[in-house]
Amino acid sequence: MGASEGAGTGAPPRRRTASEQVQLALLDAAQDVLDREGLPGVTVRAVAREAGVAPMGVYNRFGSKEGMLLALAVQALDDLWREVAVDRELPPEERFRQGCHAYRRFALERPQRYALVFGGGGPVAQTGSEASVYGHAVFEVLIELVEGLLGPVARERFAHSGEAAQIVWIALHGAVHLELGGIGQVAGSHDVYEQLLDLLVRGLRDGRSGPRL
Amino acid sequence: MGASEGAGTGAPPRRRTASEQVQLALLDAAQDVLDREGLPGVTVRAVAREAGVAPMGVYNRFGSKEGMLLALAVQALDDLWREVAVDRELPPEERFRQGCHAYRRFALERPQRYALVFGGGGPVAQTGSEASVYGHAVFEVLIELVEGLLGPVARERFAHSGEAAQIVWIALHGAVHLELGGIGQVAGSHDVYEQLLDLLVRGLRDGRSGPRL
Repeated sequence: MGASEGAGTGAPPRRRTASEQVQLALLDAAQDVLDREGLPGVTVRAVAREAGVAPMGVYNRFGSKEGMLLALAVQALDDLWREVAVDRELPPEERFRQGCHAYRRFALERPQRYALVFGGGGPVAQTGSEASVYGHAVFEVLIELVEGLLGPVARERFAHSGEAAQIVWIALHGAVHLELGGIGQVAGSHDVYEQLLDLLVRGLRDGRSGPRL
Repeated sequence: MGASEGAGTGAPPRRRTASEQVQLALLDAAQDVLDREGLPGVTVRAVAREAGVAPMGVYNRFGSKEGMLLALAVQALDDLWREVAVDRELPPEERFRQGCHAYRRFALERPQRYALVFGGGGPVAQTGSEASVYGHAVFEVLIELVEGLLGPVARERFAHSGEAAQIVWIALHGAVHLELGGIGQVAGSHDVYEQLLDLLVRGLRDGRSGPRL
């Protein structure tokens, strides 16, 4: 599991062992199968075929299909973390908006990975699982983005900034999940998302509309 | 399809024909299977077994498994419509909050029906399908709830009240979908939902916090 330990630090080790390279090759194959065929298609046999190895090679790396899905979820969350963790030098509102746009982009560009992670149940729901730890790391970024925006009055309203971040996550998830499901009731998903961000920014900035920095 | 025509008017016909009674019995059986085993368990064979009829009896009513799922989705949306269409005599904010609470209650009490309807794809996503028509009827209620709250400034911000209602739906769906998936990041889903409604009310009422009527 060297590779995922590497991902744990947010930066993979410079020189990968042969073992790590095999792990990464299998993970890439699994991601390709997931992106192409969706979660139901991600079987040990299909991933082995994709990677050109024997099914036993997949079992040797991931232990089981569940182990493989966990590794996929961890990778997806690590990728999402990299995308939402935008430049800290940006003004708070701009940073918040960029992070939220990155979240939507990730979901729309990798719908199968997003569904694996946030589709409900799965490894992220298992408290203490490696995926839940990575999920929390992404949430920590969201907390940071939100804290940059929270005005004194809004800060009073929430029990803690995590509560405000949870509400933002709820809104972002609802938006991309309905968009991916194709069951929105009005046209212009992008405009609606902008309106949603405007409302969130107003709500986090003491209800007043802050300057668009 | 007399029964669903009845549902279409929001009130089933007083005296049901034998044919309608059979349809309703099969629909009840299908709902029981759905609630108990989830969408994958809803097969013509399982529903026939549940209703104590031959599979052909199910085919005769619904034409196909897809027809059966469509009827289930229509029924679920009609039930949801009845729950969110709260007393029009209530003050706008109270009415909005009660409608939003009814939405969450429906999702938490009937998670499988909620997933069938709003899980993504499915009959609701098919424009012009009977389910999409019922989905729009629910959305119309949401528009009404939102219009009661919209202040003049907020009204200016949105292209039309449907856009504001879409944003509210996004938020409600995100909240219940994450709650059902068990992947929230903070404890106290009920409190978080209240905070979410507070933020929505502020955002729809010109950004200011209105009196809690």
